[in-house]
Amino acid sequence: MDKLKEMIIEKGEIREGNILKVDSFLNHQLDTQFLYEMGEEMYRLFKDQEITKILTIEVSGIAIAIMAALVFKVPVVFAKKTESLNLDKDVYVGKVFSYTKNKEYNIMISKKYLNSNDKLLIIDDFLAEGNAMKGLIDMAKQSNAEVKGIGIAIEKGFQKGGKILREEGYNLKSLAIVDEMKNGSITFREVD
Amino acid sequence: MDKLKEMIIEKGEIREGNILKVDSFLNHQLDTQFLYEMGEEMYRLFKDQEITKILTIEVSGIAIAIMAALVFKVPVVFAKKTESLNLDKDVYVGKVFSYTKNKEYNIMISKKYLNSNDKLLIIDDFLAEGNAMKGLIDMAKQSNAEVKGIGIAIEKGFQKGGKILREEGYNLKSLAIVDEMKNGSITFREVD
Repeated sequence: MDKLKEMIIEKGEIREGNILKVDSFLNHQLDTQFLYEMGEEMYRLFKDQEITKILTIEVSGIAIAIMAALVFKVPVVFAKKTESLNLDKDVYVGKVFSYTKNKEYNIMISKKYLNSNDKLLIIDDFLAEGNAMKGLIDMAKQSNAEVKGIGIAIEKGFQKGGKILREEGYNLKSLAIVDEMKNGSITFREVD
Repeated sequence: MDKLKEMIIEKGEIREGNILKVDSFLNHQLDTQFLYEMGEEMYRLFKDQEITKILTIEVSGIAIAIMAALVFKVPVVFAKKTESLNLDKDVYVGKVFSYTKNKEYNIMISKKYLNSNDKLLIIDDFLAEGNAMKGLIDMAKQSNAEVKGIGIAIEKGFQKGGKILREEGYNLKSLAIVDEMKNGSITFREVD
């Protein structure tokens, strides 16, 4: 998505440790109209998948997920992060390893909101090592829902999450794939 | 907003401690189309206020805030909860007392995304004691932005947040005000 590449070049900030900050339009301030356009692009990419529900994870997946859901005319379910060890039995639990915090935490979804009739599009803002995505897919499997697609705003192509998911056969599409961030300059991979 | 009252009656769950759970459409699963309608209702209530930006707080304010923002055609800024004590100087910091956790935590907004030119509509899903709202208003004051309105989905009228904010002169409007939850039955206040 050309406009996303332009926004990243114009407004993204590269920080130490291969961090790409896009706080001005995606992660802190939200460019509403542009998020809606990303939702439309998600629809273009996945409209033939008979999606019944969009799955994402709090916090920063919610805005783009609900914009896409508005175009798809389906509900969103977002997984909640929790420190609680005593989770009630009516939830699916996924595990996510956080590199920034160097620890594993739980994410959960109520069993009420995910089941074997669901054809899911999983949406998130970033894909790097794919840890959050692994947790989401694991919960989708527990519910016997079908993962029909994975839509990412910004994929870090130099980390292994996207490669692994594609090798596993997931229908993963990213609106922009950053292959390199070096000396303040960003190289994108060509995507359709 | 009649439809919101109906949704609360039909889908809300009353739990011990005056907890009203609306996980099926507002706090875990998101009823996309209905959230958009709530956004339209926020527009009807505040359209004359020349709003330039919608302010909310993670997590559960984000979905309704961005839907309203789509109708208003303005950006959203969401305050982030943080446990960090070493915040950088480029942020406004607000304090929020959490009754459920019985401790105070910080919320923050980058100074880049809030300033004296902003005419704010502050949106949140719930208003009870008004602790989160107090933190948001405090940060708005630090930035010299003007708070033109406060839009709440569900106000708990039996807690004091709404009363205090109205007495302080804020233009507060709630789409539904719950005045009592007793024996599984909910009493609403009449609102226009």
